[in-house]
Amino acid sequence: MTPTDPASDREQGSLFQPKFDSSGLLTAVAVDAQSGTVLMLAHMDAEALDRTRETGLAHFHSRSRGRLWMKGESSGHVLKVEEILVDCDQDALVLRVSPAGPACHTGAPSCFYRRLEGDSLMRTDI
Amino acid sequence: MTPTDPASDREQGSLFQPKFDSSGLLTAVAVDAQSGTVLMLAHMDAEALDRTRETGLAHFHSRSRGRLWMKGESSGHVLKVEEILVDCDQDALVLRVSPAGPACHTGAPSCFYRRLEGDSLMRTDI
Repeated sequence: MTPTDPASDREQGSLFQPKFDSSGLLTAVAVDAQSGTVLMLAHMDAEALDRTRETGLAHFHSRSRGRLWMKGESSGHVLKVEEILVDCDQDALVLRVSPAGPACHTGAPSCFYRRLEGDSLMRTDI
Repeated sequence: MTPTDPASDREQGSLFQPKFDSSGLLTAVAVDAQSGTVLMLAHMDAEALDRTRETGLAHFHSRSRGRLWMKGESSGHVLKVEEILVDCDQDALVLRVSPAGPACHTGAPSCFYRRLEGDSLMRTDI
């Protein structure tokens, strides 16, 4: 592949070219910048990505509510974005964040608070 | 909410009830079980999830190719699944894995090998 090949450029290049899917979304994974723990997964449209970059606080697009939301807008548990990592085909992001409180709306530090064992889920946070 | 509320049951309960989206997919994030590094993000349909659980090796559904694929089926760089974590609404999984080689098809250890700085991407692995 040559440097002008679009796929190669997106994978190897230094230009940020986020690739939104057919619904206009990409996937973002928030991880704790200190511990590396995966906190939550959500989706961003172009507006949410812009707002995140402008403010330094994680914003997402709610598919169920069909609107922009800032994580922590009601709970106060915002996610301060320390670093954004971009994957090979630029359709997924890792947000390395400092959370202001529990990341999950259930009150758990991470949304991933259960481990699959057989067909059952075991809490990992209690 | 009562224990029989479907949303509450899905969030608080011990029954695995994966929630596939309108395309029949959920999102899976593979992280290195040793280091915690996020390696890759991909999608699973019910078949990919079943095959992952049966074999202990990460399987996904390729949206572009429209078929089941086992990570490493051509490269040999399989992901041995040590643990599966499930998020609050059961539409996303974290796979804690032991990778048999670089997780990214580009040869990078992780697909998230670039950091966003301004509008540019900086390699983090070289």
